[in-house]
Amino acid sequence: MAPLTPGRIRHTVVYILSHPEGSPEEEDFLAAAAALAAIPGVEAFEQLREVSPKNAYRHGISMEFADRAAYEGYNGHPDHVRFVQERWLAEVTDFLEIDYEARADSSRSAARSASV
Amino acid sequence: MAPLTPGRIRHTVVYILSHPEGSPEEEDFLAAAAALAAIPGVEAFEQLREVSPKNAYRHGISMEFADRAAYEGYNGHPDHVRFVQERWLAEVTDFLEIDYEARADSSRSAARSASV
Repeated sequence: MAPLTPGRIRHTVVYILSHPEGSPEEEDFLAAAAALAAIPGVEAFEQLREVSPKNAYRHGISMEFADRAAYEGYNGHPDHVRFVQERWLAEVTDFLEIDYEARADSSRSAARSASV
Repeated sequence: MAPLTPGRIRHTVVYILSHPEGSPEEEDFLAAAAALAAIPGVEAFEQLREVSPKNAYRHGISMEFADRAAYEGYNGHPDHVRFVQERWLAEVTDFLEIDYEARADSSRSAARSASV
């Protein structure tokens, strides 16, 4: 994937649904979540399966924002607020949000590692 | 970022170091971790800062593999095994591994969301 450049934010969440895997209810939730991609500022939107046997999460969402203002615009957007209130709080039993920014020294580290 | 295509795996880990932020010891650990990018099969390697106030993790690593065989080759590679034994177990105080694969229906969901 394209590396995260300075200033950008990659917002991710892993979660567990109350619905059985492969159920119509799961499908309906994922379709509603997919609509978050249309909110202004959302880039590189992905719905993912979480497949590590080392944690209990089963679903993931990843998206990127150009800057913190775009991220805050998404957080406060009525479509996002409504999704959280009407779907997320009712159907998600556990979740963890993880947000990434580039390391300021990442290009230097990469250059160093290339010579190892 | 380029979407994760079917069959590929995005392996991520968030973690906390025992070293103070900005210390030479932290810098040295990150430089050693950067060398993991040179292990065969590792693609799209990134060292990241974890910036969400909603969890305690402060560092992240993300990498991708073309398939499960490449992932297993990395896991068993002597350079990775040595890094885990000599650095990770000694200097990382908490971590969580999260692995992603594409949803089989992700393109369908995306197409659906585009029409919402």
